[in-house]
Amino acid sequence: MRAAIFRQGDFTVDRIPDPVLAEGQVLVRTRACGICGSDLHAAKYTDAFVDVARRSGGRFQMVKDRDVVFGHEFVGEVVENGPGTEGRFRPGTLVTSMPLTIAGQRVEGVGYNPDVPGAFAEYLPLAERMLLPLPEGMEPDHAALVEPMAVGVHAVAFGRTTPEDVALVIGCGPIGLAVIAALKLQGIAPVIAADFSPARRALAQRMGADIVVDPAAASPYAALDRAITPAGFDGSRYAQLLGLSPRRRPAVVFECVGMPGVMQQVFEQAPPGARIVIVGVCMEPDRFEPFFGIVKQLNVQFVLGYTAEEFAATLGHIGAGRIDVAPLITGRVGLEGVRQAFQDLANPERHAKVLVEPWR
Amino acid sequence: MRAAIFRQGDFTVDRIPDPVLAEGQVLVRTRACGICGSDLHAAKYTDAFVDVARRSGGRFQMVKDRDVVFGHEFVGEVVENGPGTEGRFRPGTLVTSMPLTIAGQRVEGVGYNPDVPGAFAEYLPLAERMLLPLPEGMEPDHAALVEPMAVGVHAVAFGRTTPEDVALVIGCGPIGLAVIAALKLQGIAPVIAADFSPARRALAQRMGADIVVDPAAASPYAALDRAITPAGFDGSRYAQLLGLSPRRRPAVVFECVGMPGVMQQVFEQAPPGARIVIVGVCMEPDRFEPFFGIVKQLNVQFVLGYTAEEFAATLGHIGAGRIDVAPLITGRVGLEGVRQAFQDLANPERHAKVLVEPWR
Ligand SMILES: [Zn+2]
Ligand SMILES: [Zn+2]
Repeated sequence: MRAAIFRQGDFTVDRIPDPVLAEGQVLVRTRACGICGSDLHAAKYTDAFVDVARRSGGRFQMVKDRDVVFGHEFVGEVVENGPGTEGRFRPGTLVTSMPLTIAGQRVEGVGYNPDVPGAFAEYLPLAERMLLPLPEGMEPDHAALVEPMAVGVHAVAFGRTTPEDVALVIGCGPIGLAVIAALKLQGIAPVIAADFSPARRALAQRMGADIVVDPAAASPYAALDRAITPAGFDGSRYAQLLGLSPRRRPAVVFECVGMPGVMQQVFEQAPPGARIVIVGVCMEPDRFEPFFGIVKQLNVQFVLGYTAEEFAATLGHIGAGRIDVAPLITGRVGLEGVRQAFQDLANPERHAKVLVEPWR
Repeated sequence: MRAAIFRQGDFTVDRIPDPVLAEGQVLVRTRACGICGSDLHAAKYTDAFVDVARRSGGRFQMVKDRDVVFGHEFVGEVVENGPGTEGRFRPGTLVTSMPLTIAGQRVEGVGYNPDVPGAFAEYLPLAERMLLPLPEGMEPDHAALVEPMAVGVHAVAFGRTTPEDVALVIGCGPIGLAVIAALKLQGIAPVIAADFSPARRALAQRMGADIVVDPAAASPYAALDRAITPAGFDGSRYAQLLGLSPRRRPAVVFECVGMPGVMQQVFEQAPPGARIVIVGVCMEPDRFEPFFGIVKQLNVQFVLGYTAEEFAATLGHIGAGRIDVAPLITGRVGLEGVRQAFQDLANPERHAKVLVEPWR
């Protein structure tokens, strides 16, 4: 089959062996697969990515000197039921899955694994027990957005968000946009979204953000402060100590940038008692001043991925139109276009999510 | 009155003006006041302390070029009821208070404030409405331990600790020991405590730690892993993904060291899903790798101080013998001995808590 192979720091399109189905696997023809921020990071900083993933017990099996085929945000069509399957899905059925497959009693990651090509290739060997059929009438390509949107659903749930909260989303790339969609699904209001890019702010609004802020022009934290502070609030130490002031609403800040230095900015500017949910994946060491966290009694929740239930629920939300992902799809390329797309994605004005269509 | 004055980086004992009572204040003669780790830090790293406190909105009014009298862990005796008081406490009543006083409508910190001498002095101007009388029969000096013990009570409560949890306490200085006492009060078991010092480990045991570990000889995190892991636990990805393994108990790690680098150690070694409660006050910038937090979905709760309710409850616990603070008092000095005590406290084998007795 044809695949966009990441080899020694660059992409090349070539033929690789077709998947050989193991016990319980189904052959799926890739229809579309999103390019993820983590893919960009793994391509640009392979050494650091591999190193920190290994030391931290991360699930990436990538190694520097072996070919890898990226692609973990996919939708496809059942081609063939392999040995030991129950035949639950007829050929032609549209399906998606968490980016994992099961071969016998071994679970394998899909997307950063030299042993299992990801979805920037024509075919995938997926586990029948993990396949999810698309809801009736769903636009098939939208299922390629289930994976990144599920990250938002998980972040909001794992971050213990409640309707009491006012939420600030820092960074409106695909992950920030997923968080915004999940917050609005939970009825959180207002949701404040901040990004330097006008295009990203426009997308944030389309995903339901109530207030969008350009951090170059105004402080998103000032907007947060206004939104949590009731009339008659008295921040003086006297009023606070003696309980003479109405309370502020709880604030939750979703860090969706994933670059060193952002956490310190949040620590400096978040209101006392804020919860910070770290959704952006920062793979470099970071520097911060714990004392800000101490003085404000901040809480920091790191999150990753989603549960199987959250993934399935997200498919349902998108299928039923409760999350509209159409505005996020800003480009489509074939395998030959993957290299260029990785470069183009650096420009937030141009792209949010690019889909790779290996059959093109 | 006489006071141990911190001036230009050193202590000197001298006379300063007696407090002038404001509306609602009571004059209290200091009976004893503990020396706190934060006092040591403020004395040794005054510039950094003042700088980070100012930038973070901390409540320390200390400035480099003004005299300050430390002392915020005190017990004393009512001498005189000032203007506008209700006379709730007869002269001679033994009292303690949170280290704050109220002058009219202004709340002032006690202990790091050039405008209000702390309790390394003969007298304190305290707010009548904040005074707590000691329970009948309580050993008076034990009330000087209410403040540090309340920090532990608050950390355990604010860290959302439940009897489901297994707790690991890193660092058994006074704050770590306070956390251990508060954990046992809540029925948490096992409580694992780690410190390089044999004397500190012995104190940890006296405060109720179930397992004590010398990190130079064995990993406290290995002990934590053993304590949370049920028989038949299967950590393989297959078993985890398909829910085939019994669950581990939740783990909570109390960081009570407050030095740069400790958080990264916890991030590297804590089990997935752990909650980390930062009780140690680190005033320097710190470096860590967020990716460990992400992969393990760690939660970090920074805590500071206590509520008025927690402070009062801690007084009750100590008064009733539910927390035994006697083993923590390892020395007593007069004002002239403060300078030497600040040096001696660097040695964990020698001291836990030194009480200053300004009347000596
Ligand atoms: Zn992704
Ligand atoms: Zn203290």
